[in-house]
Amino acid sequence: MAKNRCVIITGGDPTAGLSGLIRGDDFVIACDRGVGYAAKENVTPDLIIGDFDSYVGPLPENVPVTRLPSEKDDTDTMAAMRYAEERGFSEVLLTCALGGKRFDHTVANLQTMAHGASAGLTVTLEGDGVRMICSGPATREIKKEEGAYLSLFAMSGEVSGVDLTGVKYPLSGGKLMSSFPLGVSNEWTEGAARISHKSGILLIVISEK
Amino acid sequence: MAKNRCVIITGGDPTAGLSGLIRGDDFVIACDRGVGYAAKENVTPDLIIGDFDSYVGPLPENVPVTRLPSEKDDTDTMAAMRYAEERGFSEVLLTCALGGKRFDHTVANLQTMAHGASAGLTVTLEGDGVRMICSGPATREIKKEEGAYLSLFAMSGEVSGVDLTGVKYPLSGGKLMSSFPLGVSNEWTEGAARISHKSGILLIVISEK
Repeated sequence: MAKNRCVIITGGDPTAGLSGLIRGDDFVIACDRGVGYAAKENVTPDLIIGDFDSYVGPLPENVPVTRLPSEKDDTDTMAAMRYAEERGFSEVLLTCALGGKRFDHTVANLQTMAHGASAGLTVTLEGDGVRMICSGPATREIKKEEGAYLSLFAMSGEVSGVDLTGVKYPLSGGKLMSSFPLGVSNEWTEGAARISHKSGILLIVISEK
Repeated sequence: MAKNRCVIITGGDPTAGLSGLIRGDDFVIACDRGVGYAAKENVTPDLIIGDFDSYVGPLPENVPVTRLPSEKDDTDTMAAMRYAEERGFSEVLLTCALGGKRFDHTVANLQTMAHGASAGLTVTLEGDGVRMICSGPATREIKKEEGAYLSLFAMSGEVSGVDLTGVKYPLSGGKLMSSFPLGVSNEWTEGAARISHKSGILLIVISEK
């Protein structure tokens, strides 16, 4: 039986419709300011992780808290991702992870997705007007979203053996590189795009026009 | 004599105080919607590059235009970066490159910075509340900015031989990896941080708190 999914609610801009993204059997980790976002959406986390440098409100009762030192190497989100990796979740949904003034955290959260993917997880991020899926070698179908672009990026130095069909600019055995954004702004020509790759960490970005 | 700098004005959210960032001897490329941003700030570009899929206003007179097909592999910004690389500029300033709804372009622009850095350029990006510097092996000093964090990220798989002093969490011969955000939210303890690295593409992010 597939293990349930780990949802990380972190401290960027709140993701619209957050509570609707969470399933009953998800394991929910709230990080720092994400504790407030969870409370606002009546989501009770299963675990709270943070150094609480940016959240000062009350903590929900009966929820275990992993308090991190504020002088630490990992970001709170990275600590949550490690937890998900160590506990054997195969899927992580990252929310409230973009926007705000802290662009350093945006970059860190992209790299945190790559960390989860390197550990074998499929990491999805839901933001406002954007959804991203990051993983190692896999085959997946992405249903057409009206008014959206589909882009592919290498999050490891190189992603090879990329097959992409059902889109305006298909690829067959293609190669993507992290220092060369070649797969930006593709468009669906069929009901679903089929994407597979043989090596490396691929980031799929579905972005509203 | 050092060659002048290439400034790319692209199509994300406009960078506040754009005209103040541009020096008299900069070579300015405006891409697509950036043409409008330049006009608004009374900046006359030296070159216009774009497929004009998102800018429909008038083009300034007497400015050469490189019109790209809208069905192309490169983004407009990437085409401008290639131009800067081919013409031998050693420094690029990327503006209006973040924000907006198109997070795919934000990721693409980060990777475009890495492309310029791989070609030997120093690429700086000025955004709202954030400044980033991306380059290959180098030694530089970053002056303390009040109310800001200093973060380091690997934009190639690995960045090694990282020396970092003048900050709360120094490094000596450290290693950063693109799938492990270890260098987030450092703070100045001296008037300037000294940063050097021996291999790989390093991204320095100065982000307002």
